[in-house]
Amino acid sequence: MKKKNLLIAQSGGPSAAINATLAGAVSAAQQCPQVDRIFGSRHGIEGVLREHWVDLTDFSQLERLKATPAMALGSCRFKLPEDFSDPVYQQIDTVFRKMNVGYFLYIGGNDSMDTVSKLSDYYADREGPVVVGLPKTIDNDLPGCDHTPGYGSAARYLAVTMDELIRDTAIYALPSVTIVEIMGRDAGWLTLAAGLPRFRGGSKPDIIAIPEKPFDEQAFLAEVREKMKTTQNIVAVVSEGIRDAEGQYVGAGAKSGAVDTFGHLYLSGVGKYLEGLVKREIGCKVRSIEVNLMQRCAGHLASQADLDESFAVGAHGMAMAAAGEGGRMAAILRKEGPEYGYYCGSADIKACANQERLVPAEWFDLDDPAVQKEICRYILPLIRGEAAQFRDEYGFADYVIF
Amino acid sequence: MKKKNLLIAQSGGPSAAINATLAGAVSAAQQCPQVDRIFGSRHGIEGVLREHWVDLTDFSQLERLKATPAMALGSCRFKLPEDFSDPVYQQIDTVFRKMNVGYFLYIGGNDSMDTVSKLSDYYADREGPVVVGLPKTIDNDLPGCDHTPGYGSAARYLAVTMDELIRDTAIYALPSVTIVEIMGRDAGWLTLAAGLPRFRGGSKPDIIAIPEKPFDEQAFLAEVREKMKTTQNIVAVVSEGIRDAEGQYVGAGAKSGAVDTFGHLYLSGVGKYLEGLVKREIGCKVRSIEVNLMQRCAGHLASQADLDESFAVGAHGMAMAAAGEGGRMAAILRKEGPEYGYYCGSADIKACANQERLVPAEWFDLDDPAVQKEICRYILPLIRGEAAQFRDEYGFADYVIF
Repeated sequence: MKKKNLLIAQSGGPSAAINATLAGAVSAAQQCPQVDRIFGSRHGIEGVLREHWVDLTDFSQLERLKATPAMALGSCRFKLPEDFSDPVYQQIDTVFRKMNVGYFLYIGGNDSMDTVSKLSDYYADREGPVVVGLPKTIDNDLPGCDHTPGYGSAARYLAVTMDELIRDTAIYALPSVTIVEIMGRDAGWLTLAAGLPRFRGGSKPDIIAIPEKPFDEQAFLAEVREKMKTTQNIVAVVSEGIRDAEGQYVGAGAKSGAVDTFGHLYLSGVGKYLEGLVKREIGCKVRSIEVNLMQRCAGHLASQADLDESFAVGAHGMAMAAAGEGGRMAAILRKEGPEYGYYCGSADIKACANQERLVPAEWFDLDDPAVQKEICRYILPLIRGEAAQFRDEYGFADYVIF
Repeated sequence: MKKKNLLIAQSGGPSAAINATLAGAVSAAQQCPQVDRIFGSRHGIEGVLREHWVDLTDFSQLERLKATPAMALGSCRFKLPEDFSDPVYQQIDTVFRKMNVGYFLYIGGNDSMDTVSKLSDYYADREGPVVVGLPKTIDNDLPGCDHTPGYGSAARYLAVTMDELIRDTAIYALPSVTIVEIMGRDAGWLTLAAGLPRFRGGSKPDIIAIPEKPFDEQAFLAEVREKMKTTQNIVAVVSEGIRDAEGQYVGAGAKSGAVDTFGHLYLSGVGKYLEGLVKREIGCKVRSIEVNLMQRCAGHLASQADLDESFAVGAHGMAMAAAGEGGRMAAILRKEGPEYGYYCGSADIKACANQERLVPAEWFDLDDPAVQKEICRYILPLIRGEAAQFRDEYGFADYVIF
């Protein structure tokens, strides 16, 4: 057997668990007899083009890497062209050959799986590395899996933080509305996690709005007014991407219309928009809170279950590559049965790239106790366990920095 | 000795440590032979007026209360009138007599100490309870003490969170500016805590702006441009209340001018304002983050040192009341010497009410290594130790709710 090298890279937005997946893949590669050297590309596919990588063959700080949030290798937002005759493919192929890359693992979300899909197709009728996608997204919106690495930690952060915000907003005996804006352009999974304090049996947050379910401003105001009759401090959690019945982002008229490199509308401020709406229409004290980057980089609240599964799916992806199972994404799947259990499998990359897994319509009635129970059954095992920390007495973590 | 009752209340904004002070005072009162019943007023002085309180005489969950963020008794923003002939004083006095209140402890910040000062003056020539102030403010701006209960926990939250945000913003190999807006209308103590990742020897945050030092927009832009020559991802932390050389809040022209009940200008959005400025003048990717309420209610990141000291100063305040030392605020003071140590003392309430302790001018040069060392020497002992938690495996805390 001729040994080949592994090249691994990270792409898309950060999470508290993406380095756990990196650590899992590196750990498996270090034990894999087919793998010679292990290279980590800096800033995703851009590091391939720039020939910029670090050698991880003998890297031993895997536990510390596992607990390090954001991407240790750096990220990029780079979309490969549709046309394989574009010189960028030739350039990548030249680097892969030069580096003797036999396995290319790409860790990322929906957009990153597009890169995996295209490279797999490119190498379908050419000699080249086995290309495998490793999942990552706090948004939990990748198809082909039960849930995604990074979601559990972000969900834990949101559940704990919402519990604290609910207490904070409850201290005054005055009518008030607090609007908390949660990440999620198309999928409401993170917002459901912010709803856990209620789903578990509490009374708040009072209103929970996800992008999958059309949002009606007048119905929202009516609900706020109705709930204010029995509770003074209304807490609403809303996904950044909530839309009206016509599919227009709520408050979009007040926004810039700028788009990111993947053509997504750049979102900011549905919370601020609703704050203005409530102030104008109801007139009580109102405040909006954008949880912002904290929800995706809070390693200090990472879920041990999430880090463990993220590590495992990274190792599984390496095993897939070694077995020649290219053009697929490694996936975390849920065992049948009353007790939570997971196993690693895989999904066709075509079913994952640029596709989204949304909150099912059966869950739209978030006031239904049966739905709340289902949501708890789904999310709680993913946020379980306080992650091992490498911190000093002041709380500062000893992160891996390449 | 004739036993009297204790009435204790909380006021102002929440913190992660105000219930620790409540727990300390209640614990001391339970052991004090002069105290008969212990009542906790709901929503500060408003609970006195509404005759709404809870009986804490036999309350035993003091450790759990100590670890509970926000105010377990509820808060208010109520300013007593200057004129003692106002009927509100007669009303308070009637309730105090009816309840046989011999000791009145009020936990809060600068504005709450105004209430303590006025009630002390009111009772200077009348029979009535001994009135003692117990300090609380994440802003750390109360005079007469070394630091305030609640500051250490907020500082720990900010230091840890900034460390994570710095990592998050560093992942792309693209020029970017991130502006983080920290609480602090007049005092920069919290923003200094957000600067700890740099003061301890790191390189970020790149720019740190506090209200005490006049902020010049052009100098800020020049500094961003200069730093961008050597680092791609600029991180700036700014206090919400930074002002220009004329004392005008930065971006105030873009704001509403609304004021709160104490006449303070309602602040929002210096971060957003600077985001717009950088976008317009420099044109790179720019994002602003408001850390918002999370910095004051994050019990999950509370500092054990802060909770212990907050508990101790609450107990000390009760001892002061029992000794008849009214018209004063209990205070945490720092022992002389190379090793950190604290003790409890007190300060004249007149020196605390409506007064602010600001970051000293000797610390304005935040690039000076000697200043950075001094700041670390001052803040680090206050954020030390992970607070004891009463959490389940999902991270949900078992808080005290009255």
